[in-house]
Amino acid sequence: METLTPAFVYRHTKVRIITERSTEFIDLTESLEDLLADSHILTGFLNVQSLHTTASIVVNEGEPLLLRDFECLLRKVAPQEALYQHDDEAVRTVNVSPGERPNGASHCRALMLGTSACLNVVNGRLVLGRWQRVFLAELDGPRSRDISVLLMGEAAQ
Amino acid sequence: METLTPAFVYRHTKVRIITERSTEFIDLTESLEDLLADSHILTGFLNVQSLHTTASIVVNEGEPLLLRDFECLLRKVAPQEALYQHDDEAVRTVNVSPGERPNGASHCRALMLGTSACLNVVNGRLVLGRWQRVFLAELDGPRSRDISVLLMGEAAQ
Amino acid sequence: METLTPAFVYRHTKVRIITERSTEFIDLTESLEDLLADSHILTGFLNVQSLHTTASIVVNEGEPLLLRDFECLLRKVAPQEALYQHDDEAVRTVNVSPGERPNGASHCRALMLGTSACLNVVNGRLVLGRWQRVFLAELDGPRSRDISVLLMGEAAQ
Repeated sequence: METLTPAFVYRHTKVRIITERSTEFIDLTESLEDLLADSHILTGFLNVQSLHTTASIVVNEGEPLLLRDFECLLRKVAPQEALYQHDDEAVRTVNVSPGERPNGASHCRALMLGTSACLNVVNGRLVLGRWQRVFLAELDGPRSRDISVLLMGEAAQ
Repeated sequence: METLTPAFVYRHTKVRIITERSTEFIDLTESLEDLLADSHILTGFLNVQSLHTTASIVVNEGEPLLLRDFECLLRKVAPQEALYQHDDEAVRTVNVSPGERPNGASHCRALMLGTSACLNVVNGRLVLGRWQRVFLAELDGPRSRDISVLLMGEAAQ
Repeated sequence: METLTPAFVYRHTKVRIITERSTEFIDLTESLEDLLADSHILTGFLNVQSLHTTASIVVNEGEPLLLRDFECLLRKVAPQEALYQHDDEAVRTVNVSPGERPNGASHCRALMLGTSACLNVVNGRLVLGRWQRVFLAELDGPRSRDISVLLMGEAAQ
């Protein structure tokens, strides 16, 4: 039997996700577990980042009715029908993209939810509680989204 | 005098906390400093995660009246008396636990506050400002709660 | 040609920022990229922390009108004119500083926005999307603010 020496390992992956609705919670947990298994990392950190300013990373329960409650909550926090200066084409001059849809509300929601989650890895598994799932929160869909996943830690060789 | 070689170290701990009120902020700072001291890590990261979907990790000031202001804020963000589809036993079919209390508001509050905090470690101490304390925010108590603390960095040997 | 052996590197920096308005978003992105370049780290994590309880770290778009929308959002979430027990000098006894301005609203806003951001580093660059910028969110200015930036990862030697 060979002696296995642990090694310090990095694994970076970009994952593309095509969203289908204006607000949508896409469960990333299984994909993250697969990336972790491929890395052979036993102990370390997995940091998952949204690469967008109108899509967030959140951790909560994947119960379908609850995800609708989250959608209601976000509508209350930053209503679509409120006025946002970001959406005022008459005065805005910075970062203007042709054909951009009004999305001030989406930015405000993303600000409150945050951009990334740093998760502990132990015994080759994400440390998650019984009900915890990791989601990409689409707040201005449908769109093509990219997330960055960096794993860093000690791997079996 | 021996020459000390620095070593790369991981320390994972689960901490159990019994909460006593429906909303409660439990100061974890001293426990985290103790775990850090035990690890002998001088430089690195401490990532503390709630393992629950109705309890969060937050960093703010431990002034008792302010913690009551936070409770008011959370009641405004997601009122207990509002209707949550997650609490509608007539239609919900997923993740149903016998005797589960209605806690849609608690999930919504946890979504806004977030699940974890990644803290810098320098000179064997958490890098925290004068007023900063790290809290487990209980949002659906009283309950038994588990948090995961992973320390990773360079230790004196 | 020499063979370069990669090395594991830590770099900690405190950055001081003098803010000028009560609410202000100070773009840290370029400073963080500079710290990263100086560290020669190619792959790893950059964790940036506010050391204050009324100033947050957020990631979103640096469009000036949008930053005003964020200010409106924060005023709605925690209005300055609401009553906060933290600001009640008649009853408060803990953490009282002489001449402290009433800032319960600022603490509540900071609670919602969060204290830090952990960012992935790949190929010697912060992994950020096209519109993403990293900001110190001043919520109780003007003040002198300190942020802690810890870089950890593999560097070219």
